[in-house]
Amino acid sequence: MQRTSLVFAIALGFIAATPVAGQEDAEVRGIIERTNDMLAQWYAAGEIDSVAAYFAEDAWQMPPNHEPLVGREAVRSFWSQAVGIGAWTFDLDAQDVVVSGPIAVERGSFSLAFEAGSGSRIPSFQDRGNYLVLWRREDDGVWRIVWDAPVSSVPMAQAE
Amino acid sequence: MQRTSLVFAIALGFIAATPVAGQEDAEVRGIIERTNDMLAQWYAAGEIDSVAAYFAEDAWQMPPNHEPLVGREAVRSFWSQAVGIGAWTFDLDAQDVVVSGPIAVERGSFSLAFEAGSGSRIPSFQDRGNYLVLWRREDDGVWRIVWDAPVSSVPMAQAE
Repeated sequence: MQRTSLVFAIALGFIAATPVAGQEDAEVRGIIERTNDMLAQWYAAGEIDSVAAYFAEDAWQMPPNHEPLVGREAVRSFWSQAVGIGAWTFDLDAQDVVVSGPIAVERGSFSLAFEAGSGSRIPSFQDRGNYLVLWRREDDGVWRIVWDAPVSSVPMAQAE
Repeated sequence: MQRTSLVFAIALGFIAATPVAGQEDAEVRGIIERTNDMLAQWYAAGEIDSVAAYFAEDAWQMPPNHEPLVGREAVRSFWSQAVGIGAWTFDLDAQDVVVSGPIAVERGSFSLAFEAGSGSRIPSFQDRGNYLVLWRREDDGVWRIVWDAPVSSVPMAQAE
């Protein structure tokens, strides 16, 4: 019986240690979904240092109809100003995630409601569309956004 | 001498068969750059069947301010109509390519000049911006576009 238990324990160990591709992908997808939820909360709360912590140092974020934000500091600076003029309510919905080693590519849909604060030169607006995000598992084990490309699907004339 | 030659031949065989990460990445980047050049030529020439052949069956293309094109047939149909109303001159410039196994993610910049033909309801326009593309090496060895997210960097008011 002892011997059987040992074999069973070894077998369990192998099962635990052997990566199952599907399970791993689902795990990464879960991490991405939870990070998206946190990001949406932080954008809404104006907690931009927390947002920036999930962008890689060499990140590129590409806001529609705006020059790209290159580097974590550019992301932090842009959004620190942006949350000063109003409230940004994002909904981020991961629709498909492809994982390969230390990178993952997410395709999702988003909606955005901007509610202008007093004195904002930008009027309130709503937007929606789809996005691609390249994620990278960095040396500290955290999955961060490397490249972020949101594409508005709202026709030009209605976009503002 | 025969023995030395044999060892040398085996060593060469190993060198040829051992993938060197940097070289492989450069090779994939080269394939992507050549495909981009061909795509630009085919868009300009209206050869949309050739364009569509480099999109995966399950491709998503996300034209700015338009609903996404889902599937190769949607890409073919959209562009077949589009090239009927004018000339589309793309310049696609891969700036960074991340390769991991059978996928690659490309970050690039683009410019687009649309010259309206007679009877087009859309006036001539120019656009420029940045994009992310997810590429996949498919079973036939061809790298195809799976997801394509181009983001205009032209401010709203100037975009048309």
